[in-house]
Amino acid sequence: MAAVNQVYIAIIGAGGVGKCFLSQLQALAARRPSPKLSLCYISTSRKALYNVDYSPVSLDGVTESLAASTQAPPPLPQVIDYLASAPAKVILVDNTSSQDVADAYPLALSRGLSIVTPNKKAFSGSYKLWQDIFTASATSGAKIYHESSVGAGLPVISTLKDLVDTGDKVTKIEGVFSGTMSFLFNSFAPTEGQGGKWSEEVKKAKALGYTEPDPRDDLNGLDVARKLTILARLAGLPVESPTSFPVQSLIPKELEACSTGDEFLEKLPAFDQQMEDTKAAAEKAGKVVRFVGSIDVATQQVKVGLEQFDRSHPIASLKGSDNIISFYTERYGSNPLIIQGAGAGGDVTAMGVTGDLIKVLSQIA
Amino acid sequence: MAAVNQVYIAIIGAGGVGKCFLSQLQALAARRPSPKLSLCYISTSRKALYNVDYSPVSLDGVTESLAASTQAPPPLPQVIDYLASAPAKVILVDNTSSQDVADAYPLALSRGLSIVTPNKKAFSGSYKLWQDIFTASATSGAKIYHESSVGAGLPVISTLKDLVDTGDKVTKIEGVFSGTMSFLFNSFAPTEGQGGKWSEEVKKAKALGYTEPDPRDDLNGLDVARKLTILARLAGLPVESPTSFPVQSLIPKELEACSTGDEFLEKLPAFDQQMEDTKAAAEKAGKVVRFVGSIDVATQQVKVGLEQFDRSHPIASLKGSDNIISFYTERYGSNPLIIQGAGAGGDVTAMGVTGDLIKVLSQIA
Repeated sequence: MAAVNQVYIAIIGAGGVGKCFLSQLQALAARRPSPKLSLCYISTSRKALYNVDYSPVSLDGVTESLAASTQAPPPLPQVIDYLASAPAKVILVDNTSSQDVADAYPLALSRGLSIVTPNKKAFSGSYKLWQDIFTASATSGAKIYHESSVGAGLPVISTLKDLVDTGDKVTKIEGVFSGTMSFLFNSFAPTEGQGGKWSEEVKKAKALGYTEPDPRDDLNGLDVARKLTILARLAGLPVESPTSFPVQSLIPKELEACSTGDEFLEKLPAFDQQMEDTKAAAEKAGKVVRFVGSIDVATQQVKVGLEQFDRSHPIASLKGSDNIISFYTERYGSNPLIIQGAGAGGDVTAMGVTGDLIKVLSQIA
Repeated sequence: MAAVNQVYIAIIGAGGVGKCFLSQLQALAARRPSPKLSLCYISTSRKALYNVDYSPVSLDGVTESLAASTQAPPPLPQVIDYLASAPAKVILVDNTSSQDVADAYPLALSRGLSIVTPNKKAFSGSYKLWQDIFTASATSGAKIYHESSVGAGLPVISTLKDLVDTGDKVTKIEGVFSGTMSFLFNSFAPTEGQGGKWSEEVKKAKALGYTEPDPRDDLNGLDVARKLTILARLAGLPVESPTSFPVQSLIPKELEACSTGDEFLEKLPAFDQQMEDTKAAAEKAGKVVRFVGSIDVATQQVKVGLEQFDRSHPIASLKGSDNIISFYTERYGSNPLIIQGAGAGGDVTAMGVTGDLIKVLSQIA
């Protein structure tokens, strides 16, 4: 039997967020002697590290040990079997953005494994998966938290849950949900000064590491649509999928067929005039253009795309790659509850996961 | 023996926030069948309602039943005795702003009673009381939450705790922490237009119910100093009391001796020029004046008072009686994590209390 007050941690994924999380977990385990946190499983897509007798994997130098491992990760159902038989409670940390892992959540939860994750796929895929996940959690009592699936470490999900759980009525949610889009439009259409050419700003953002390896993965709007799907569902709307509402893509029709991101970037300047026209139209109205998402709960309308804002509007005056999320509710009236700050980055994303882990520990340990 | 999954709720205070909380509690109990929430005690300063055999007090029409009660509230140690002997777990909801009730928290917590409260006094009084409270909680395992002690229902305390608990280093906290001060300065020194005379704005704020019955209780800065004390302590600074750092009072020295708030308001216009000069000085620098609090963690400096801000600064462009709180941290870098919205009002304050209650339930039930 394991000692009382021990909790096993199992981690899938050791990329950018995963590495930051490991360092936060190490510090947390050192700071809080109880409950004792023992790593019992860690894997990437190609390697795994675990012991069949559940003896802990050392957190010291775990990235190196994992790289040196010769074990391949077992199939997910087998991993879940192994974790469900552990001699103490288990928290599964999914630091991937894998749909396959997300699809296994209902099984994991039904076997009593609690889950914390920044993986958007589980909560923005089919509505059936969403229902299966929360039904499994409610039935088994295993917890599931995903703060970092929207706005990274910003308290977006927890705030929305608190509003709903305490009986407030959310009427509208609006904001800038993508650090990439925030950076692009704050540079392309600043509230003061001129801003650069659209294609130049996209290249700059890529060079600075603010975009996905292929910038089209940001410009197609799907990332924002996934986040809106999650928030809309938490607000009570049974949104079917991130493609079941209007999402404006900033990829010109003519460039959808480009075979690589590089080809896309090369051809993009020919379409600068389209974005220039959009900017000029906003300027003519004394406004600036921004890429936003909004949820109107009463009319059940969810949409993602370009909109114009007064220069003094909080959405217009955002800085750098910050996110901003405004919750309009019955209790808060005409002035929304606003959360603002960095919505991407390894450390702040991992922070949301670590915060969730602490919440689960307070409930199960 | 009480049935499993029953939790007793005991409430002290049935004023503005207390009434809103009761209505939220009633809705919560109706929405969530498990755990069963039973009211076992409720009192004002003069009346109480409870049954020695712990049979529940009905939530239906409880305000009227309480008003009709002929029982006086027993002394606090006796109330704590009664609650500690209850046949199920108890959450004590302190909806007062009483120092006496706050002083009883260490005893209540040591007897296993969890506490949720908007009462600032417990956390902004002597540092010894703060230590006694959290020592008692850590020793007995009873929970204590006080989200609404700063910024009402805004997620201020929980966000700061998450930052600290996950290992981020908070470097600076700055903001507008008083709905009254926010309203006064947004009207007196707006970013656009002229604004009225100071004394007129104070009278207007009082008429609209935005000030305490005696407006000096807002203008002396102590309310903001109490909130800063709480946040500074959560950020790790052992602040001795809300009077142990510089707090600028907006009550002219000559009016400190006024015997009533009405006398104060009558004499205030004679001092309008002082505030007019302050506003003009800021305008000359292209700025506006605001009443803010700030905590510099590295230098351990806490202060409350007037400061100048650029018109485009989020603190300058605040609306109505909104609060804004900026957390500067190592992980968030130069752009702070910002929380903004209504920081006062019965419903949003009660919401923070109800949210805390739900958190405690998730941990003890």
